[in-house]
Amino acid sequence: MLSEMKRLLVGKPLANEQLAHERLPKRTALAVFSSDALSSVAYATEAILIALMYANREALGLATPISIGIVVLLITVAFSYRQTIMAYPQGGGSYIVSRDNLGKVPSLVAASSLLIDYILTVAVSMSAGVAAVTSAFPFLDPWRIEIAVGLIAVLTLANLRGLKESGSVFALPTYLFIASMAVMILTGLYNIAFGTVVIPPVPHIPHAEAGHAITIFLILRAFAAGCTALTGIEAISDGVPAFQKPESRNASTTLIIMVVVLSLMFLGITQLAESYRIIPDGSLEPETANSQLARAIFGGSSVFYYVIQASTMLILILASNTAYADFPRLSYFLAIDRYLPRQFAQRGDRLVFSNGVLFLGVVSAILVIFFKAREQALLPLYAVGVFLSFTISQFSMVQRWRTLKTPGWVGNAIINGLGATVTGVVLVVIAGTKFLEGAWAVLLLIPILVIVLLSIQKHYLDVAEQLSLNDAPAPVALRRHTVIVLVSGVHRGVVPALQYGLSLTSDNIRGLYIDMDAENTERIKTKWAQWGSGVELEILPSPYRSLIGPIREYLHRMEKRYHDDVVTVILPEFIPNRWWQNVLHNQTALALKTMLLFTRNVVVVSVPYHLDH
Amino acid sequence: MLSEMKRLLVGKPLANEQLAHERLPKRTALAVFSSDALSSVAYATEAILIALMYANREALGLATPISIGIVVLLITVAFSYRQTIMAYPQGGGSYIVSRDNLGKVPSLVAASSLLIDYILTVAVSMSAGVAAVTSAFPFLDPWRIEIAVGLIAVLTLANLRGLKESGSVFALPTYLFIASMAVMILTGLYNIAFGTVVIPPVPHIPHAEAGHAITIFLILRAFAAGCTALTGIEAISDGVPAFQKPESRNASTTLIIMVVVLSLMFLGITQLAESYRIIPDGSLEPETANSQLARAIFGGSSVFYYVIQASTMLILILASNTAYADFPRLSYFLAIDRYLPRQFAQRGDRLVFSNGVLFLGVVSAILVIFFKAREQALLPLYAVGVFLSFTISQFSMVQRWRTLKTPGWVGNAIINGLGATVTGVVLVVIAGTKFLEGAWAVLLLIPILVIVLLSIQKHYLDVAEQLSLNDAPAPVALRRHTVIVLVSGVHRGVVPALQYGLSLTSDNIRGLYIDMDAENTERIKTKWAQWGSGVELEILPSPYRSLIGPIREYLHRMEKRYHDDVVTVILPEFIPNRWWQNVLHNQTALALKTMLLFTRNVVVVSVPYHLDH
Repeated sequence: MLSEMKRLLVGKPLANEQLAHERLPKRTALAVFSSDALSSVAYATEAILIALMYANREALGLATPISIGIVVLLITVAFSYRQTIMAYPQGGGSYIVSRDNLGKVPSLVAASSLLIDYILTVAVSMSAGVAAVTSAFPFLDPWRIEIAVGLIAVLTLANLRGLKESGSVFALPTYLFIASMAVMILTGLYNIAFGTVVIPPVPHIPHAEAGHAITIFLILRAFAAGCTALTGIEAISDGVPAFQKPESRNASTTLIIMVVVLSLMFLGITQLAESYRIIPDGSLEPETANSQLARAIFGGSSVFYYVIQASTMLILILASNTAYADFPRLSYFLAIDRYLPRQFAQRGDRLVFSNGVLFLGVVSAILVIFFKAREQALLPLYAVGVFLSFTISQFSMVQRWRTLKTPGWVGNAIINGLGATVTGVVLVVIAGTKFLEGAWAVLLLIPILVIVLLSIQKHYLDVAEQLSLNDAPAPVALRRHTVIVLVSGVHRGVVPALQYGLSLTSDNIRGLYIDMDAENTERIKTKWAQWGSGVELEILPSPYRSLIGPIREYLHRMEKRYHDDVVTVILPEFIPNRWWQNVLHNQTALALKTMLLFTRNVVVVSVPYHLDH
Repeated sequence: MLSEMKRLLVGKPLANEQLAHERLPKRTALAVFSSDALSSVAYATEAILIALMYANREALGLATPISIGIVVLLITVAFSYRQTIMAYPQGGGSYIVSRDNLGKVPSLVAASSLLIDYILTVAVSMSAGVAAVTSAFPFLDPWRIEIAVGLIAVLTLANLRGLKESGSVFALPTYLFIASMAVMILTGLYNIAFGTVVIPPVPHIPHAEAGHAITIFLILRAFAAGCTALTGIEAISDGVPAFQKPESRNASTTLIIMVVVLSLMFLGITQLAESYRIIPDGSLEPETANSQLARAIFGGSSVFYYVIQASTMLILILASNTAYADFPRLSYFLAIDRYLPRQFAQRGDRLVFSNGVLFLGVVSAILVIFFKAREQALLPLYAVGVFLSFTISQFSMVQRWRTLKTPGWVGNAIINGLGATVTGVVLVVIAGTKFLEGAWAVLLLIPILVIVLLSIQKHYLDVAEQLSLNDAPAPVALRRHTVIVLVSGVHRGVVPALQYGLSLTSDNIRGLYIDMDAENTERIKTKWAQWGSGVELEILPSPYRSLIGPIREYLHRMEKRYHDDVVTVILPEFIPNRWWQNVLHNQTALALKTMLLFTRNVVVVSVPYHLDH
């Protein structure tokens, strides 16, 4: 029944041969790999404004210079990643690149930050997507968390079925988003240039009236907040093998297009937010800054306003979906290297890494619930991991050039070195300015995760060594059986168990019954005399009404008596006709089997007796 | 580790001999058995007022006549139960009495209503107890549910340890409650009689201004609501064996004292509530009617007000505790008669019926959460079951007199017949007037529960018959073993499994490996050639990467081939040194074992290989 429900939800199993890879043309690849990066303009500008508005009303004017700084950073990082794309046509994720060039611990630091990032990508993007909807329809705000968790559930299920990475699904929302943002930005700039709108005066911000000074810390904090615009730009370097040939060339061109589009959108939105005097809505049911801007430009009841909100939501869902490709793939790599349980390396029925997909869905849903689906509350956690993995990845490239010394390596090393340095500095800025807002949790979690990954590997290697046959002694044939048949009553199920035991040994066998009730015990004795096939029945008292305790002690005594044999414990189990009837039986057998499994030198034999109805 | 935690929570196990019964003198027995009945005055009057205030302001004047009617009912029922006490010195709960005199189905109807009742006793009493506290300290109201669930958890734990039914624990709160109620009622009556207080005018009840007419339905509904005052009066008849000799005499006297005390308290509180113009607080954080009354009489800041609230809470906790004695005992009786899973008949470590205690705790906590710890919302569900079990119990007694025809049986039958008739009529009134408020749920649940109990018994009897050795064939010695060793890899753990298999049969044995990865398969083949002890290795392809499917099919083919043997499947299992390391292993083995258990004619053998570190 469970398996039928699974079939209904995820579909029929797929055979190994059906595993196929699609090669994407540039225009489709742009849609597939850029949704994560492009969608960050949905919240990055707002994050800057929120950081600034805690000072005074003039501070909001700093948004544009800060966003220009972020674009410069973006271009530097892009140049650096362009080299990774060229060097790793097979795909150059931070974990792979740092494992190759820096070694174990740095690669695990990168892997841990990425695992955290992917989970945050889902939580942040889904929350921001829902915020786009509730900005347009505020009456949906109370169901915010339910909607976000529901969307995560649908996405998880779709990925368990195995979403075809077919470009068409991705292309439409991505290009719709780019187009609608372009129309909005151009309309807004035209309005301002030709003065067709009256710009309101600098708004009143209640808590800013105190007039805090504009400090360096404040500017750095706003800059750090805006750096969330860079999340997702590493996606293309991970996915080089999915491009048409020549892969690296095409991927590199796509990266440049993406960076240009992202920069223009981010600068445009920030400039307009400043010109239109948008201030983040601090109310309990906040409207996003982008929604306020779209409303100011087009009017809240125009069709175009709704198109913008809808396309924002769609691209954010796509952005979440990229994490559903990245997280299971990274956990597959880690499981292959034995840093994660083997289950993460197994393809499920539908050829996807189901365990990774499920894990990502569950953990990101928990995050969404915990942060009440407010993406601005999640953002301080997000950027730390992203920039940590950027830095490690770029630094790995520097190391690579220094080792390989290919022609022109010095120039290459300088570009990656510059990338590593600026992302490293930004990482320190983010960690410092966002520490108390949540970055501390990520900075604490990463070393813990690294230790867990290392311990898992240590355990697996340890087990492999203990199980190794390399210097194992030659197999010794079993000399002698000692058999114990556990008896809870004398019934039909006991008879085949007893016969099975007698087939192992005819003299070293006994029944074992735990006496919990004198009356029952007498009845058992009588019946055993008739049906026990001449086997001796031992009766153990159990003053504390425990089954497990006396049996365990008995086995310990047994083990001391014989040394050259194997003790076999036979459990007669009757199996009901329908699985749910098991609720009424066999609870004790299950507990017993668990105990016996952990008892040394004991082989457990289940002899079932299947009931007919 | 788990077992250590259990020891810490519930204490050391107790031996069978430590099971002892205390005999209670009347004054202690009154405290032990009357807390449930007496505590109902904490909510019964308020229930009447709530039902009345929906008509008009004059309707509140009906509270006193209605409460007099309820006291008449109470006395009638008490006389009827007095005869049960005399007839059943071994304890006359509804289930036992109706099973003896009316048969299977009526006794199960009584049992089902009682099971529901006991759960409701805990939920209602705990909620009312918390209401007494939040009336005094309204700032605690938002934590109402947490407090109630926390108290249930503490009570459950205390009962798992095995609360000694020592009278002293019960005597203090019960007598404190009786005393404080007496002081309150006498003070109130004195004040009214001598006019030392100004009674406010009839209060303004917003929704009553429409002036609905006082209908028969309204009066009956108020009467039905007040009948919750009778809950718990059957407790003494259940507990006769706990009294000192002569048990029946002493129990009967105690019943009379309890009924007198209960009647006086109930009449007094209702009379005062009317005189003091108390109307139930319909606000979101309501104050109980009793709290309002105590405040009106003593002033809200007097010590005495707090004493009343505290003693109310304590007696309500005691009332819940009586359900913790009754529910496990009844489920023990039902389990002995095979209507409930055997687990309910087993005494735990501490000699209590732990499963019944746990079940009661969990279900009543769920009810409290669902009804947000509002006892007035739970009350409509409560009275139906109580009166159904009253009616069946009294009617069983009539049946008994008609069968036994002991001297004076006609008079006895008339008394019980009157009891049965009035409780039956009240049952119809409650079911009719409270149907939409929740009584429907109980009326629906009781037949469902009866069917479940009957099905469980049918299943157990069915299994017993199938397992019966009465006309079983003589045991046949096992002729021939067919052995399959499941192999997931060739490692040290496989060697002892193979040796074990070879000890069963030297020729009819094979290894079985599921091919999921061509590369691995080649490695396995090579290793097997060296370590396989000459046993053949079969390799099954699994295009869908499933282990379970191919193995199941293989076993079906196997089973068809041989008829005169037992197929033994040997699972080599390596057991990590620490139990939590199992998270990283053996998940597949567990799923396999479950599948194999349900496959006919297959014996499962676990050969463990214990790792050293």
